[in-house]
Amino acid sequence: MSRILTVAGAQLGPIAKAETRAEVVERLLVLMKEAKRHDADLIVYPELALTTFFPRWFMEDEAELDAYYETEMPSAETAPLFAEAKRLGMAFVLGYAERDGDKRFNTAILVENGEIVLKYRKVHLPGHAEHEPWRAFQHLEKRYFEVGNLGFPVTHAVGANVGLAICNDRRWPETYRVMGLQDVELIALGYNTPLHNPPAPVHDALGLHHNTLVMQSGAYQNATFVVGIAKCGVEEGVMQIGGSQIIAPSGETIAQATTLEDELIVARCDLDLCTSYKSSVFNFAAHRRPEAYDLITSRTGAIPPAKKA
Amino acid sequence: MSRILTVAGAQLGPIAKAETRAEVVERLLVLMKEAKRHDADLIVYPELALTTFFPRWFMEDEAELDAYYETEMPSAETAPLFAEAKRLGMAFVLGYAERDGDKRFNTAILVENGEIVLKYRKVHLPGHAEHEPWRAFQHLEKRYFEVGNLGFPVTHAVGANVGLAICNDRRWPETYRVMGLQDVELIALGYNTPLHNPPAPVHDALGLHHNTLVMQSGAYQNATFVVGIAKCGVEEGVMQIGGSQIIAPSGETIAQATTLEDELIVARCDLDLCTSYKSSVFNFAAHRRPEAYDLITSRTGAIPPAKKA
Repeated sequence: MSRILTVAGAQLGPIAKAETRAEVVERLLVLMKEAKRHDADLIVYPELALTTFFPRWFMEDEAELDAYYETEMPSAETAPLFAEAKRLGMAFVLGYAERDGDKRFNTAILVENGEIVLKYRKVHLPGHAEHEPWRAFQHLEKRYFEVGNLGFPVTHAVGANVGLAICNDRRWPETYRVMGLQDVELIALGYNTPLHNPPAPVHDALGLHHNTLVMQSGAYQNATFVVGIAKCGVEEGVMQIGGSQIIAPSGETIAQATTLEDELIVARCDLDLCTSYKSSVFNFAAHRRPEAYDLITSRTGAIPPAKKA
Repeated sequence: MSRILTVAGAQLGPIAKAETRAEVVERLLVLMKEAKRHDADLIVYPELALTTFFPRWFMEDEAELDAYYETEMPSAETAPLFAEAKRLGMAFVLGYAERDGDKRFNTAILVENGEIVLKYRKVHLPGHAEHEPWRAFQHLEKRYFEVGNLGFPVTHAVGANVGLAICNDRRWPETYRVMGLQDVELIALGYNTPLHNPPAPVHDALGLHHNTLVMQSGAYQNATFVVGIAKCGVEEGVMQIGGSQIIAPSGETIAQATTLEDELIVARCDLDLCTSYKSSVFNFAAHRRPEAYDLITSRTGAIPPAKKA
């Protein structure tokens, strides 16, 4: 008996600064109802899916900044999403900015039967913490968010072992591996990735290549499906890459978006394909050698070898 | 001033069981002299480059097995390679089966100025330890080799921070990361990869995809060049994949073999391209979070989350 999970990825086009959460939730609901027509069990929305990508601006006014964060989930504006998902019998993954007391996080949740069954707070915050006016736009995630304090949890939900990650997390093999060691079968991750990286503009043309490369290798090397979903297109003057895709444990992309707009992609994910890899080339118990990996947890930055005299 | 290292990859076609080491070394010398015509600073040969890939056979006779191992390096048969490399001013990487007292290893060395300046013993041994007659051919690396006991060392040689890996090591992100944390700029690795994997034949058609995927992601995620060189073609009735390639820190393949024979590939590797990535997206000191990576060193095999009642 194969275990087929039908997964929808809900890529979002730009969200304008002036757009209200109620307007955004209406877009999310349109995509959810479309996904239902394809009999989806799960729909994955991007990172920070309720507002424009606000870390592109330097804000000194705390009240202005706080307006982008949710202090409860569901909130009044997102309650219709929870209700409709429950009514449709669909699980969803949603990214949003979370305010928890005096701490702020870049957060994603998995909601099943209308209840939050998994929460993740972004660990790998990219960008910078101080205003850098020389940039065409800011990327102040290191200023506006704390480093996630929940690790990389995996839970059994929607019939699979599911984990979450967010945007820059996907570039780090540690992200996938920590979940792989929890036997993850599906990793859902959303992203907002500007095409232009001000400190390294020579890399800009490779954005989609890198996006696919890191998600395919993370999937293959951990024998898991990866569902990577973008908010993309020109948002408040900044181009963000699309390239949303669903990747099998074979490292093959099995569904991919082609626009920079709201776009639904769908794939039938046979979870038994994970087993095929987990029991052969990526049988961790048989092949991993943690005694050789010490530096991965004992060292943070790179230290070069001594040069000979 | 850019730091250009001209690197040659010496893919090898099959080596017959009856072929002598002297005959093989002659092939290696032909490729070395070709590389010199392209002004190569370094030439990389495959894994177990001196003999046929003997772990495909179950051998009970210790003397028959021992005949595949080197007890000294250089040996009488490989001394001409060391001498010619020194004469040409070229460094080389060579893989071979090493017997050290009563221990056997799958080993690679980096030789500069005719001297061994780096030795690595394969950590991730694939295959199995017992005879499995149901297989079309054996893969007895876990029987014929000990797990490498030298870690993943990186040394400064040929003007770069250089590390070594062997075959199955390339599928494991830990391999690259441990060297990345030593500021590696070039990883040389050889492989012998049968197209057919008896325990998982449904993966066979993806061999080249996986080969490229893991080496490109290892290069990009650690901001290093990766030089991956195959022994390939139909060797003693077993097809092995080619796909030898030189990959830049951008994750782009900049030279690639197209045959399944002895074939030289060459690339000018600008080591300063490493810096571009090491100082931005993969500035480890700025972005890594080892406190979230504990499972990578504390757990070997995967353990699934509890299923809810």
